[in-house]
Amino acid sequence: MLNNPKNQGMVLWFTGLSGAGKTTIANKIAKILSEEGSKYELIDGDVLREQLNWDLGFDEDGRKKNVNIAGYTANLLSKHGVIVLVTLISPFKEQRDRIKMSINNFVEIYVNTPLEVCIQRDHKGLYKKALANEIPNFTGISHPYEAPLKPDVEIDTSIISIDDCVKKIINFLNEKIARLD
Amino acid sequence: MLNNPKNQGMVLWFTGLSGAGKTTIANKIAKILSEEGSKYELIDGDVLREQLNWDLGFDEDGRKKNVNIAGYTANLLSKHGVIVLVTLISPFKEQRDRIKMSINNFVEIYVNTPLEVCIQRDHKGLYKKALANEIPNFTGISHPYEAPLKPDVEIDTSIISIDDCVKKIINFLNEKIARLD
Repeated sequence: MLNNPKNQGMVLWFTGLSGAGKTTIANKIAKILSEEGSKYELIDGDVLREQLNWDLGFDEDGRKKNVNIAGYTANLLSKHGVIVLVTLISPFKEQRDRIKMSINNFVEIYVNTPLEVCIQRDHKGLYKKALANEIPNFTGISHPYEAPLKPDVEIDTSIISIDDCVKKIINFLNEKIARLD
Repeated sequence: MLNNPKNQGMVLWFTGLSGAGKTTIANKIAKILSEEGSKYELIDGDVLREQLNWDLGFDEDGRKKNVNIAGYTANLLSKHGVIVLVTLISPFKEQRDRIKMSINNFVEIYVNTPLEVCIQRDHKGLYKKALANEIPNFTGISHPYEAPLKPDVEIDTSIISIDDCVKKIINFLNEKIARLD
């Protein structure tokens, strides 16, 4: 349970490879927040691309634009007391750091599931295609992922269960909120 | 005074030519909302371009992207009880109508100050440059402006004072909020 009596806005930024478990964990946390009546919003990288409805590529430029828009929107929402869950590969460390600096109560959650596990899972069949060179600029295969050096929370879904990941994050948030009060 | 007991989120979308008075009016309303303790946010087209920090052009494509991002962000904020004041030339009717359809409590405010008056004012010296062909794609000069056919509020700052514009808008909002309750 999140103990947020003053309804502090926050940005929970989930970064990590495709298939690492970012969206699964964020959805579980969103469900808890919903049941508790907290104000929250999910910003998912893929959904954002659809909603903006333009030909944003997956090269460095396209990815950075998508990440910037998510950061811009998440910042404004969090200023107004919303807990924003952003799920985005967001592979570039410098850009993540810049966004982190610009947002109060930014929590970087590194979903550090090993690439081999993500490839084994391959829920969307994308790794198979990327490994066959059918998808260009695929993070971890043909495009870089710059891991966070000091994430606020680091989780590996190949080692701990999704429920335990959620608990770890909620515990971190409660400690953070207690310090803010 | 805005009478918004349930803290309804809304999007006040100011459309009109450069120099029409969009930002001046929105700032006055923002000041009132601030003094009354209402949650509000200003999204200004030029500021948005700066904050996103990329080479978004002023051709049709660049303008539409900027407008889409503003619409996306304003929608999420208004869902969480924020009154969002968007000041954007937003010259394309179809795009404005699409955003209008996607947002609850969208108020289209057409700041219909005649082009000749905007040219006379020319606060930023942009019309002079546009008329000398030094700026391409300048709305009203070398780029189209598609006026709203049925705006919720229409104001002409060459005929009525800024304070009266503000009153007209606040009156409209109070009537709208009363109908929502």
